[in-house]
Amino acid sequence: MGMTITEKILADHSSKKEVFPGELIFVKLDFLLANDITGPLAIKEFEKIGVEKVFDNEKIALVPDHSTPNKDIKSAMQSKILREFAKKQGIKYYYEVGRVGIEHALLPEEGLVLPGDAIIGADSHTCTYGALGAFSTGVGSTDLAYAMATGEIWLKVPESIKFVYYGKLSQWVTGKDLILYTIGQIGVDGARYKAMEFTGEVIRNLSMSDRLTICNMAIEAGAKNGIIEPDEITLEYVRNRAKRNFKVYKSDEDAHYKEIYEWDVTNLEPIVAFPHLPSNIKKISDIGKDIYIDQVYIGSCTNGRIEDLRLAAKILKGHKVHKDVRLIVTPATPNVYMQALKEGLIEIFLEVGASITPPSCGPCLGGHLGVLAEGEKAVATTNRNFVGRMGHPKSEVYLSNPAVAAASAILGRIAAPWEVEVKE
Amino acid sequence: MGMTITEKILADHSSKKEVFPGELIFVKLDFLLANDITGPLAIKEFEKIGVEKVFDNEKIALVPDHSTPNKDIKSAMQSKILREFAKKQGIKYYYEVGRVGIEHALLPEEGLVLPGDAIIGADSHTCTYGALGAFSTGVGSTDLAYAMATGEIWLKVPESIKFVYYGKLSQWVTGKDLILYTIGQIGVDGARYKAMEFTGEVIRNLSMSDRLTICNMAIEAGAKNGIIEPDEITLEYVRNRAKRNFKVYKSDEDAHYKEIYEWDVTNLEPIVAFPHLPSNIKKISDIGKDIYIDQVYIGSCTNGRIEDLRLAAKILKGHKVHKDVRLIVTPATPNVYMQALKEGLIEIFLEVGASITPPSCGPCLGGHLGVLAEGEKAVATTNRNFVGRMGHPKSEVYLSNPAVAAASAILGRIAAPWEVEVKE
Repeated sequence: MGMTITEKILADHSSKKEVFPGELIFVKLDFLLANDITGPLAIKEFEKIGVEKVFDNEKIALVPDHSTPNKDIKSAMQSKILREFAKKQGIKYYYEVGRVGIEHALLPEEGLVLPGDAIIGADSHTCTYGALGAFSTGVGSTDLAYAMATGEIWLKVPESIKFVYYGKLSQWVTGKDLILYTIGQIGVDGARYKAMEFTGEVIRNLSMSDRLTICNMAIEAGAKNGIIEPDEITLEYVRNRAKRNFKVYKSDEDAHYKEIYEWDVTNLEPIVAFPHLPSNIKKISDIGKDIYIDQVYIGSCTNGRIEDLRLAAKILKGHKVHKDVRLIVTPATPNVYMQALKEGLIEIFLEVGASITPPSCGPCLGGHLGVLAEGEKAVATTNRNFVGRMGHPKSEVYLSNPAVAAASAILGRIAAPWEVEVKE
Repeated sequence: MGMTITEKILADHSSKKEVFPGELIFVKLDFLLANDITGPLAIKEFEKIGVEKVFDNEKIALVPDHSTPNKDIKSAMQSKILREFAKKQGIKYYYEVGRVGIEHALLPEEGLVLPGDAIIGADSHTCTYGALGAFSTGVGSTDLAYAMATGEIWLKVPESIKFVYYGKLSQWVTGKDLILYTIGQIGVDGARYKAMEFTGEVIRNLSMSDRLTICNMAIEAGAKNGIIEPDEITLEYVRNRAKRNFKVYKSDEDAHYKEIYEWDVTNLEPIVAFPHLPSNIKKISDIGKDIYIDQVYIGSCTNGRIEDLRLAAKILKGHKVHKDVRLIVTPATPNVYMQALKEGLIEIFLEVGASITPPSCGPCLGGHLGVLAEGEKAVATTNRNFVGRMGHPKSEVYLSNPAVAAASAILGRIAAPWEVEVKE
C-alpha cells in the first residue's frame, strides 16, 4: 500500500523504507525553532543534558518575537538568555529586535524551512510550515532541548485525514475562511494527533500566503501537522529563498487515509469564529449588525503577511477607523513592513487612524501591544479565541480574515467586507 | 519693579496686578492634562469630590500614551477607566490608540497649549509647554482631580533664574545639549521650585522643537517651570494650530532674577549624561571609545519630533545598526510618523534594521517596547537616567541628542556623530 506525504517524509527521515501510523520512530530533523518564551526553558533543559554544543548551529533558529521589544524586565531577562545562548553556540539564525519577525512568517520568508523537511519548533503553530510540503510540528521546550543536543526527535507516526476542496472561492473568501470552516465541521479535537492533508483544486489555486494560514491553524483542530503537497506555486515561492537543498514529496494514489472530507466551497462566505473556540463558527451573513467591538487586530503568524495587509488596506483606504475602536496592525516581518511601506499600505493604515506596531506576536496571546480589558470585544485575524487569550478572562475574541477585520474596524461592529465601499 | 514672564502670567491668571515670588495664589487654568498612568488616579479622586461635571470638558486632554497599545491586563483596565471617564464627561480631547501621540509632543502640535497659558498636567514633564511662552507645570493626581473640578490650582509663585546663551552652536549640537550642559552646571536641584527662563541669541535662533526639548528637561534641574519668551518662531509655530486665542507675555527689563547665568556656547560639543543623573555630563570628545551598548532609543517627549528623526536619519542613512544593538525608534505622534513616512525617514529606519514602534512613552520610563535587562546599557534621547529608569536596577542609561544616539547605534558604542560618514 502507498504512503501519504507525511508518512513518506517521516520514513525518509527515520531511514526506513516505510512507516505506519501508530509506529514509534526517531526522526532526523532538518530545522528547529524556539522563541523568547520557549527558548529560555529549552536552554535551561539543554544545559542539564551536559552536551557542550548544539548538534548543528546552522539548523536552529532563535526568534525573540513574543515579548519584544522587551515589554518588561522579566521578558528582557528572557530575551537576554536567548541572545547569550545564540552567541555562545554561534547560532546562525538568531534574529535581533529590529531584524526579527514573527517566527512562522519569518522562517518561510527566509528560506529556512523547505519542502520535504522534518521540522520541530517549541511553539504550537510550528505546523505552519506544512504549507511548503514539510512535516512540521510543535513540541514542548524539553523535547526541543533534547533535539538541540541530538538533532532527533522521538514521535509516533500520525494517521492522515484528507480534506478536498472543490469549486471556486468568492471574493473576500480566503484561506482563513477555509480553515475556520474546516475546524467548524470537525471540531477542535477533530484531527487529534492526525496529519491534516489539504488538497483539491481550491488549494491548488491558493497563494502560499493562504496555504500558510491554513496549515498554521491545523493545531486548532488538534492535528499533529497540516500539510499541502508542493506544486509550482510552492516551488516559485521557495526557489529564490531556499538556503539548503530540498526534496518534493507527494502522497501516493493508494495512500491510506483515516477519513476523507470533500467539500464544494463555491458558496462559502467569510467565516467568523465566535468566543471561545475556533470551531464556534458563523458565516458572516448569519451574524447580526449588533456585535459592537472595542479593538481590531490585523497581524499574527496566521494573517500578518503582505497579502493580508493588502486585503485589509483595500477595505480601509479612504475610510476612518470607528471612533470607539482601536485598530492595531502588525506587519509580520521587517520585509513585510518594508513591502507594505513601498506599496503605500503603511500610509493607508496611518491615514485611517491605525496603530502600527513592530513585528511581534503582540496581543494575539495577550502578550502586549493591545491586551484586552474586562468586557472588551475584539475581532482578530489570529488563530485562537480561547477564554482570556488576548487579555482579561472576561474579554471576547472573534476570529476572522483581514477583510472582515478591516470592515469591522470602520463600522465599529462585526461587519461584512461588502458593507464598506471600496475606494480605489 | 518689573515682573518676569512667569510672574506676569501668574498675576493675570490670579486676577492680580502683580505677584511676588513666594506668594501663595490661586491660578485660573487654561488647560489640564492627564495620561493613562496618572489619569485613573485623578479620576478616582475626582469622583470623591462629589462634583458631577468637570469644570470645562474642552480644557482637559486625556492622553493614553504610557502603556498603549495596552501592554497587559492591568494597563488595559487603566486605559478603560480613562476612556469611560472621557465618554461620560464628554471630554473633547481624548485621544484613542492609533490617534494618540506622546502627550507633550501631541498637545503643542494640536494647538491645545498656547503662549500665555497657565497649564497643569499630571506628569512631571508638563513643563515642556513653557517653550511656547506658557506657565506650565507638573502636578500630582490629587491636585489634578481638584483642578478638574474647579479649573484652578493653588501654588506658590516661583523665583526666576535667567539662563542666557551667547554664540553660535556647532554642527550636531542641539537644544538637548544646551539643557544637559545647563543641568550639568547647576545640578539636579539647581533650580528647585524656580522658574528657569531661557534666553539669549542662541535660544532665539533655535527651532520650536529644540526649545520644547529644553523646557521639557527643566524639571530635571528641579524647576517648577521652564519658559521661553514667544517670538516670531513661536508665533509661526502657533499660528495655524491654535485652537483658542492666546496672549504673548514678555519679561520686563527690570524684572528680578534670583540668579543670572550667562554662557558662551560656541565651543559646546554634544553632551552625554552618564548614569545615573542628568547632571552627570561629559562632552563627547572626553568619552572613550569603549562604552559598548545594547540598545539605542530614539524617541520620547524630549526628542521624538520630526526634527529629531531627521537628525537621526541623516546619520543612519546607508548604514546598518550594529549587530549587537537594538535600535528602537518611536515617532512621538501620528503626524510625526506620517511626516517621517513622507520624507522617507521610516524607510531609512527600516533599512538600517531599526524597530519602529507606534507613538508611546515606551521604554523611556521602563514601561514597555524596549525595557532593559540586568547589566544592559542604553543610549537614549530621553530625559532621565535614574537607577532603573528604563528597566532593571542594574541597567544603565546614557542621555544624548539624536545624532549621538544614531552614531552609537551604528558603532555599537557611545560615538560622536562625526565618526560616521554622512551619506547623502
